[in-house]
Amino acid sequence: MTARLLRQPFGRPLRRVDLPHQVLAKKYALPVFASDALSSVAYATEEILKVLALAGVAYFSDSLWIAGIITLMLVVLLLSYRQTIFAYPNGGGAYIVARDNLGEGIAQVAGCALLIDYVLTVSVSIASGVANLASGVHQFLPSVPDWNAPARTGISLFVLFLMWYVNKRGVKESGRAFAVPTYFFLASTFLMLGVGFFKYTFGGLHSVDPSTVGDLVKADRSLGLFLLLRAFASGSTAVTGVEAISNGITAFKEPKSRNAATTMAWMCGLLGVMFLGITKLALATHAQASTSETVISQLGRTVFSAGSPFYVCVIFSTAAVLVMAANTSFADFPRLAALHAGDGFLPRWLTDRDNRLVYGVGITVLSLCSGLLIAVFHADVDLLIPLYAIGVFLSFTISQTGMVVRWRKVAKLQPGEEQPSYSPEGVLVTTLRHDPRWWLKLGINGFGAVMTAVVTVVFGFAKFTEGAWIVVLLVPTLVFVFFRIHYHYRSVHEQLVPDEALLSSYLTTPARKLMLLAINDFNLHTLPALRDLLQSGGPYTTRQAVHVDVNEHAAAELERRWREERLEERGVPLVILPSAFGGGDVVGDLVSYVRGILAADADVRVEVIIPEWSASGIWWRWLFARGLHHLTGTRLKLAFLSQSRVTVTNHRYVLADRPRARSAA
Amino acid sequence: MTARLLRQPFGRPLRRVDLPHQVLAKKYALPVFASDALSSVAYATEEILKVLALAGVAYFSDSLWIAGIITLMLVVLLLSYRQTIFAYPNGGGAYIVARDNLGEGIAQVAGCALLIDYVLTVSVSIASGVANLASGVHQFLPSVPDWNAPARTGISLFVLFLMWYVNKRGVKESGRAFAVPTYFFLASTFLMLGVGFFKYTFGGLHSVDPSTVGDLVKADRSLGLFLLLRAFASGSTAVTGVEAISNGITAFKEPKSRNAATTMAWMCGLLGVMFLGITKLALATHAQASTSETVISQLGRTVFSAGSPFYVCVIFSTAAVLVMAANTSFADFPRLAALHAGDGFLPRWLTDRDNRLVYGVGITVLSLCSGLLIAVFHADVDLLIPLYAIGVFLSFTISQTGMVVRWRKVAKLQPGEEQPSYSPEGVLVTTLRHDPRWWLKLGINGFGAVMTAVVTVVFGFAKFTEGAWIVVLLVPTLVFVFFRIHYHYRSVHEQLVPDEALLSSYLTTPARKLMLLAINDFNLHTLPALRDLLQSGGPYTTRQAVHVDVNEHAAAELERRWREERLEERGVPLVILPSAFGGGDVVGDLVSYVRGILAADADVRVEVIIPEWSASGIWWRWLFARGLHHLTGTRLKLAFLSQSRVTVTNHRYVLADRPRARSAA
Repeated sequence: MTARLLRQPFGRPLRRVDLPHQVLAKKYALPVFASDALSSVAYATEEILKVLALAGVAYFSDSLWIAGIITLMLVVLLLSYRQTIFAYPNGGGAYIVARDNLGEGIAQVAGCALLIDYVLTVSVSIASGVANLASGVHQFLPSVPDWNAPARTGISLFVLFLMWYVNKRGVKESGRAFAVPTYFFLASTFLMLGVGFFKYTFGGLHSVDPSTVGDLVKADRSLGLFLLLRAFASGSTAVTGVEAISNGITAFKEPKSRNAATTMAWMCGLLGVMFLGITKLALATHAQASTSETVISQLGRTVFSAGSPFYVCVIFSTAAVLVMAANTSFADFPRLAALHAGDGFLPRWLTDRDNRLVYGVGITVLSLCSGLLIAVFHADVDLLIPLYAIGVFLSFTISQTGMVVRWRKVAKLQPGEEQPSYSPEGVLVTTLRHDPRWWLKLGINGFGAVMTAVVTVVFGFAKFTEGAWIVVLLVPTLVFVFFRIHYHYRSVHEQLVPDEALLSSYLTTPARKLMLLAINDFNLHTLPALRDLLQSGGPYTTRQAVHVDVNEHAAAELERRWREERLEERGVPLVILPSAFGGGDVVGDLVSYVRGILAADADVRVEVIIPEWSASGIWWRWLFARGLHHLTGTRLKLAFLSQSRVTVTNHRYVLADRPRARSAA
Repeated sequence: MTARLLRQPFGRPLRRVDLPHQVLAKKYALPVFASDALSSVAYATEEILKVLALAGVAYFSDSLWIAGIITLMLVVLLLSYRQTIFAYPNGGGAYIVARDNLGEGIAQVAGCALLIDYVLTVSVSIASGVANLASGVHQFLPSVPDWNAPARTGISLFVLFLMWYVNKRGVKESGRAFAVPTYFFLASTFLMLGVGFFKYTFGGLHSVDPSTVGDLVKADRSLGLFLLLRAFASGSTAVTGVEAISNGITAFKEPKSRNAATTMAWMCGLLGVMFLGITKLALATHAQASTSETVISQLGRTVFSAGSPFYVCVIFSTAAVLVMAANTSFADFPRLAALHAGDGFLPRWLTDRDNRLVYGVGITVLSLCSGLLIAVFHADVDLLIPLYAIGVFLSFTISQTGMVVRWRKVAKLQPGEEQPSYSPEGVLVTTLRHDPRWWLKLGINGFGAVMTAVVTVVFGFAKFTEGAWIVVLLVPTLVFVFFRIHYHYRSVHEQLVPDEALLSSYLTTPARKLMLLAINDFNLHTLPALRDLLQSGGPYTTRQAVHVDVNEHAAAELERRWREERLEERGVPLVILPSAFGGGDVVGDLVSYVRGILAADADVRVEVIIPEWSASGIWWRWLFARGLHHLTGTRLKLAFLSQSRVTVTNHRYVLADRPRARSAA
């Protein structure tokens, strides 16, 4: 069992046919695609309050209209993305929409922004989940000391490790696995809101006692426009994740686009109600902005009571849905990275599925980046939030702008006219059809584009010094790297793909070759190579054995053997090269010899045959054996690594595992 | 100039004919071989006083008879080594004498002890030289703060670095270069002794004022036998280096042995007189045991005066001769290491001369080991001394014991009978001749052996806890490693050297071979390999091209090309291997295919032909290019590294240095 775990830590290898092709009914699609968006309510209200708290508790009431504006923005996004869902029934992520309408460059920016945001989704969701757990534990076990930053960081990294492992094994994206925690979260949250507003209306709703929530956020700054914009920017993290459905339309049951649109409407409805509800309830209960207890925990223990099982449900379901939200990035990030890689903007191996049929490298890269963020920012949601959402809003803007371009193309079509559009791989991406109401749709997407562009700028401006600068610098840097990678692939491709004339000349014109055996003495590792050379040959092949004279005795012995076995008569003459130095530079001597041949004859190709013995066995024994020899073979191979017109043939003789000499000594 | 220094930091490469074959007249041989021994007087007396100081200044007078005993020991060593010099005219170091008489095992112990001591000679001599310089600087510039441990360590390491560099360049062991500092040292020391004893006899010799010498060594332990033994052990470092002449007899003019013996007598005479003289003068001037001023400095400024140019001469000549002493190890250590390596007890490459014709690796190893000691012991002579000399005395003992065995062999010879003895390489080492006075010579060497054995044990015992334990543990550990290395070489040799029957069968029986081209598509890097395969062949060769099907489109295209070019008809069929997983394990698929072939046919050898392209250019560009590809070729080569009956042929296509794509983008 342990042995199997060590050998196959991620489970038995799977075959390609095991790749699931699953479609989801709406009730399962909702939890799969919505957990990211819905879970945002766990921190969005709190982050608004924390900014307002810098001016004073008196300004908390402003949170309500800020939340209102964000909810209006959510409606605009819903309307905009409905149109994308119908226009791109095979998946309409920002990358694809941008590539189809705005070109490769903008598509790279959109994809890059999304990749960054997926990393942040993991970090923020895990950190927030752990913060909620910490609040819950503190209520039930007040004697246990508060989880400090190192403890939270450690627990967050452990959760991240578990998620990495589970995803490397490969999760069947079964709707059921997502359904339980998501619906559990919806149920407990709506129960809390219901009971809360009932008590608020009919009396009995207590207030949160500031002395019980630990460290409060305090400052005495004046509430200027800048602070309001910061509060708005923090709150707008609530809408992160709403784009998820547009990426995954193909996972829906037919009619795919209609079902996806309906699910998105449901998602946005639930999200808006919960966000506004939680914000209002936070005001009603005088919830505090605290760095040690989350707002959700304060609401839960005020609406119910600290010891109530309902409170436990609220805390655990929130933590669970946040982990689910983080997990959606483990599907989205590797898939988007593979899309980039397939287009040649990221390393090709990101498109490989490993033997558990997942994009294992992408999963590991995501985990490492998220882990780095968690470690650097001590799993502190407040520190991570300024980096978050700017990427999402940038991709919203690009996606809507792409749609605007698309409607302008539609406007030019005649009734009945159709115009399909394909991806670089030849997959149908979208079909342009005449639409008399193109101006309305263009208007909706245009309004969405302008609105999200404004939010992006506001966000970058208001949060710049708090961390948004990292993302603002990272996006262009990464896009530059993406294009360097792309240039490289193009350059290699251009240099390697032959034209047909060259191709046929290659396969019909013979080429001259010199086979050159580097030989030290007559040994069991040189003999097979020599025998092979004796058997080789052909009309365009010359053969030679070369020996560097570092020891006169050895050279003479080799010449004697050569005569004795009549090897020259069999087609392989022996060349003795004088050694330049005290025997330390056999490799240099051979390399200059080969270079000389190549320089003298511009058409010949040299095949350098290197006989080598190799020790088997465990690594330190191998290393020990390597350390004791001149490694002429290895050094020769390295020397010819970038030498044109040289082929290196490596004959190996494998020694016994265990040296016999102990007994011989 | 700078460019040349970067390219050839150690100077232009030399040819083998440049290797100097120089013989030395006695007046030049003395400084070359004696600087190590003579320089010992710079610290020997001081180290005796420092041990006695632990019991009190009153016991300093004991230093005189301790020095007397050590000088007697020096006489015994002189008589013993005279005999070795005549018996081994081609060089009679402890390693060679032990190998000739006591076998390989004991020879390894002797050599190992000497190697350790060479390292310590460098560390101790440099540290002592820097300590003397520090004393001198303090006298002339009292305002400059005393050099503390980090400063001394830094300066010592810098001196060591310079010595490493000079020796890597290669020093002509010209007697003149050594003669100046050594004779300068002799002159200034004897001047100091002469003036000192003149003043002592006729009045005018002052005493050293304890308040002027800085930190004094003090304790109030009783002077027991143990402390006396420790003082004796410390003082016996005076005789280190006397064995040097016996190693270098071949460097003397003819008659070599006689000249060497005469030089050795002079050396021992000078050494004994200086050692006794300095010890007596130290008593007469009431020199102090101090950690901040050396005894030599105290004597110099008391006999002359602190500002006198004679004092400056004493200090600088002492420092200079100590550096010369350290430099002798830079010749001896690499030469002895090469001797071990030639016999197969150290890595073979230690026998290589680099392009400046020096044993560069040995020089570097010595520098690193000495540097480590200097760093660990903060260039403090007092801390290094307990490790020093035990190795030398062990090698003395072994060498004398070897001579005793030799005389017993001589005793068995008849008059006129001669019996030569050769090294493993066939070089004449010694000639045994009848000698009627063998019993006297055996007696002298026997007495020497017993005496040095006693000193070795006393040393290890008295200094064990102070650091000698390191050497006591290190010698057997290193000898164990030496033998492991030897076993390895023997095992490899046994496994690789064929018997004649096997040899002729190899060159007369043909062998079957399967040539297997791993091909991905038709590209400029695969085509040369394919063309070469089409031209290869022969009666015992089968050919195949193998493609792993990771992309149906590519496989179909390749098959179409294969038919079009009629390649199967030309002898190379195409095999399409199904891919096990999602394309991530092409290497695994190919390896299993080859393993299957090898398992099915126990006689066939498989030549795997791997076409690869490679990027040239600077390393980070190379690395970038490597990082973006699957490196199937490299991984295949690694996978077959220890696979019997597989030959790997690597066709490389070298891309242009600078990607063209920037312009194409």
